[in-house]
Amino acid sequence: MITGTGASPGIALGKALVIKNQEIHISKEEIENIEKEKNRFIKAVDKSKKELYNIRDKALNELGKEKAAIFDAHIMILDDPELISKSLNRIEKEKINSEYAFKQITDEFITVFEAMDNDYMKERAADIRDVSSRVIRNLMGITVIDLSILEEEVILVAHDLTPSDTAIMDKEKVLGFLTDIGGRTSHTAIMSRTLEIPAVVGLKNITQKLNDGDFVIFNGETGEVIINPSDKEIKEYRDLKEKYEKEKRELEALKGEVSITLDGRKVELAGNIGTPKDIKGLIKNDAEGVGLYRTEFIYMDNDSLPTEEEQFEAYKAVLEPMKPKPIVIRTLDIGGDKELSYLKFDEEMNPFLGYRAIRLCLDKKDIFKTQLRALLRASVYGNLKIMFPMISSLEELLEAKEVLNEAKKELDDEGIDYSSGIEVGMMIEVPAAALASDALAKHVDFFSIGTNDLIQYTTAVDRMNEKIHHLYNPFNPGVLRLIKMTIDNGHKEGIWVGMCGEMAGDSRMIPILLGLGLDEFSMSPISILPARKLIRSLDYKEMKKFADEIINMGSAKEIEEYIQKYF
Amino acid sequence: MITGTGASPGIALGKALVIKNQEIHISKEEIENIEKEKNRFIKAVDKSKKELYNIRDKALNELGKEKAAIFDAHIMILDDPELISKSLNRIEKEKINSEYAFKQITDEFITVFEAMDNDYMKERAADIRDVSSRVIRNLMGITVIDLSILEEEVILVAHDLTPSDTAIMDKEKVLGFLTDIGGRTSHTAIMSRTLEIPAVVGLKNITQKLNDGDFVIFNGETGEVIINPSDKEIKEYRDLKEKYEKEKRELEALKGEVSITLDGRKVELAGNIGTPKDIKGLIKNDAEGVGLYRTEFIYMDNDSLPTEEEQFEAYKAVLEPMKPKPIVIRTLDIGGDKELSYLKFDEEMNPFLGYRAIRLCLDKKDIFKTQLRALLRASVYGNLKIMFPMISSLEELLEAKEVLNEAKKELDDEGIDYSSGIEVGMMIEVPAAALASDALAKHVDFFSIGTNDLIQYTTAVDRMNEKIHHLYNPFNPGVLRLIKMTIDNGHKEGIWVGMCGEMAGDSRMIPILLGLGLDEFSMSPISILPARKLIRSLDYKEMKKFADEIINMGSAKEIEEYIQKYF
Repeated sequence: MITGTGASPGIALGKALVIKNQEIHISKEEIENIEKEKNRFIKAVDKSKKELYNIRDKALNELGKEKAAIFDAHIMILDDPELISKSLNRIEKEKINSEYAFKQITDEFITVFEAMDNDYMKERAADIRDVSSRVIRNLMGITVIDLSILEEEVILVAHDLTPSDTAIMDKEKVLGFLTDIGGRTSHTAIMSRTLEIPAVVGLKNITQKLNDGDFVIFNGETGEVIINPSDKEIKEYRDLKEKYEKEKRELEALKGEVSITLDGRKVELAGNIGTPKDIKGLIKNDAEGVGLYRTEFIYMDNDSLPTEEEQFEAYKAVLEPMKPKPIVIRTLDIGGDKELSYLKFDEEMNPFLGYRAIRLCLDKKDIFKTQLRALLRASVYGNLKIMFPMISSLEELLEAKEVLNEAKKELDDEGIDYSSGIEVGMMIEVPAAALASDALAKHVDFFSIGTNDLIQYTTAVDRMNEKIHHLYNPFNPGVLRLIKMTIDNGHKEGIWVGMCGEMAGDSRMIPILLGLGLDEFSMSPISILPARKLIRSLDYKEMKKFADEIINMGSAKEIEEYIQKYF
Repeated sequence: MITGTGASPGIALGKALVIKNQEIHISKEEIENIEKEKNRFIKAVDKSKKELYNIRDKALNELGKEKAAIFDAHIMILDDPELISKSLNRIEKEKINSEYAFKQITDEFITVFEAMDNDYMKERAADIRDVSSRVIRNLMGITVIDLSILEEEVILVAHDLTPSDTAIMDKEKVLGFLTDIGGRTSHTAIMSRTLEIPAVVGLKNITQKLNDGDFVIFNGETGEVIINPSDKEIKEYRDLKEKYEKEKRELEALKGEVSITLDGRKVELAGNIGTPKDIKGLIKNDAEGVGLYRTEFIYMDNDSLPTEEEQFEAYKAVLEPMKPKPIVIRTLDIGGDKELSYLKFDEEMNPFLGYRAIRLCLDKKDIFKTQLRALLRASVYGNLKIMFPMISSLEELLEAKEVLNEAKKELDDEGIDYSSGIEVGMMIEVPAAALASDALAKHVDFFSIGTNDLIQYTTAVDRMNEKIHHLYNPFNPGVLRLIKMTIDNGHKEGIWVGMCGEMAGDSRMIPILLGLGLDEFSMSPISILPARKLIRSLDYKEMKKFADEIINMGSAKEIEEYIQKYF
């Protein structure tokens, strides 16, 4: 048994499909039966084209026109009569094998395109390279692991999964993921929770240990993985899986129920989303609202700054179907580790302590105002709340609100309608903001605590830095005390306080946060029903006492041990 | 008038000496009078040698043997008969100018040495290059601005000053510094305060604006610089200079006095130092102790980890002469922006949130224990207090103390003596530590607040990042509240609380810090007497009320305005 980081809960049992990046060696061979060889080549081209049509259709359905266009370009290359006839000619003339002939010809094309001083043409070279290796792998009978057309149910094993892997993947056939690298907040982990597919990440060399077809079982909660398990172990995991699925059914029964404690304290369980596509998950998991709609995707999926119109559509696309549920939309949080290709700034020595989020928006007010105008315009389609990220001082908050007022005035002058009741709030993710939350609370309608960054700054630990990961601890008393301070100060001013970091969906944390008085918990949609179940089993008054005790403890170790003993 | 950042107080009036990095172009010329040319060459070599002897002696006196050895090596190169005779031969044979001949010959040597796969030989190549350009500049009559032998009093104007510039500089002749780049915490700024030489930094293009010999006057406090001033302005600055010097004499009179408020509250004013050489400044400014002895220099001045013996000597060198004054020595704070050539780690995305200081020491306990053993052994020579940097949790503090206990036990077993009364403390520079200072205070003898980092983490602003510098604000209420929390929690457990960041020497901050109850202020030695003067003019009870009011304010702007109105 090996253990990694449990990234998405659930039990999986199945055959491994290991994605290895194979190197292909092509040698020149003399061919006797030329006709047979030409035939073999034509078949491989046909097979490749069929694969590409499949992928193209899948991409079109699931990812939209733009992504599908990439595969259209690949098909066009294989339709090019010059490429094919040249290849056939060379096979015939030089009496050589198709792989070698095709490689030579495509390499010539690639060289020509790459030599051009033109980005578009250089990209075409990359396309030809992709197509070439697809045809050659088909010629050599090397199974192209095409994740979009999986023959049977498998457990995918990879070094890491890229967004494009998961985009075209046939999700129905994937029982689980196992990867060499990554932590709980890596792409694979977040994506597996979104898709509700069990996953264990950070297994170091699982791609070396497993071969295609190996039987493997794993627990996405504990991170335990067993390769070629005994019958006893298989039975054990089957039972676990059944239990897990039973629990899942119980959770299903909680849909439509309120999130209320035994003694009647009601809280809101909302979801964190990144694009309008995530609405599916919200509805499926009965989210009571959206506590964090990240707007970065609109900027990152574009080649230039998105227009007010594009943004308006993206905001409306969430507000309208979710109406009248509350939707908290966070203004642009770019910078730090998130870059835009068309908006480059000087490299920073410590980007997490740098020019990002509201700092950038207050410096580039044109960008900021365009977003605010789009938000205001979309507000009439639902229950919008606007949230500013990375505020570290009252001055910044007032300046951001001023820009919002300017945007409102502009719309007034243009006679464009917007909702009059839009709540305006801010994230509490910089320690200075939590520490001055008494003053800040007088100027907003709500706080939302962003624990990922708050932990990072409070403990001075970059959460991506493996060497000091043990110090990035949500149970650090400093972090918990800032959370209490924020909630208390918010309530003193009569505003609601939510949380939209990883912590809000963590079952070990929910009792403390409930006891501290948190009003809204915003999490991965998949965590909502388990959180509702947990909250419905707790007594608020008891948790208040429990949280009071925890807040007085001065070490994370003491806190963790106490929690373990208590539950 | 142009304005930069006032980096070291004082008024300077004098002639500018502009250090420009000139490029030298050498062309080949035919020579008629060979004997005259050979003579010219020999004279230039002699002049260069004389310069080098001067620099060598200066370095030996002020910087020690090791630095002087560099210049000995340079002299040896010029003494090499092969180099000189080869040059003379070439001048004669090819009838060419000395510059060209010498450049060719030295380039040949450089090529040979550089081609060797040996670091020692490669360094020799660099030495030859230095010597070559010195001789060639002398041949061409290009004034080599040799900072070690200044002819008259000057105001040094440079893009920036390097540590080696300031090392060999004839400090008696330097009236002030003006630089293009840098802020209050740059090398030039810190060094100019240490040397008590007025300085303005960050003037952008002062090296372009000034020419050698231009008369310039400036104010190192306000950052104002006037080029070619009018008689009226000169008079004004002469008066200012006189006033400043009068104040300085008044400060002199405060030497030997206690740092006590009008109503009898006594505090300790200590100095921050980096090497044993800084003791001069401590004594000159009547420091009551050392609040921060950074130990990094021992590691940075070495080619490998310093031995226990080397460290022991460096610690003893401060403890013994300062006895019985308290000396707080901080354990290794490497990492972040401070690197060691012989101890390389993976590059980090956010080094300030990374593997540094106590994090590194607890990971590499052998390095840590060597330092602790050296500290313990040195403790018998004075009043040592040991301080751990970057603690973010109780667990880390306890682990660090455990290593200290192991070191003590080792010395016990070896029968080596150490002082029994060594106080052990920690820096409060991570927000989590300030927030859990109630628990931490139970396990240490003192806290020292490191404001440079504390501000950085509390506001999530890299203090080196120019783009967001306005957010790095010591008046941020979050920062002040963490300071109050730390002092209150320390006092509740009966321990003393000091501060060793820039803030402790800031005259705008001292009244607040005094009012908050700070016991020890550790600063640049030059700030000590002004701080004493200020403290002796304040009423502690009044400052307590004043600080209480400030702590309740929620914005830096409000706080700064209130302070300005109050004083």
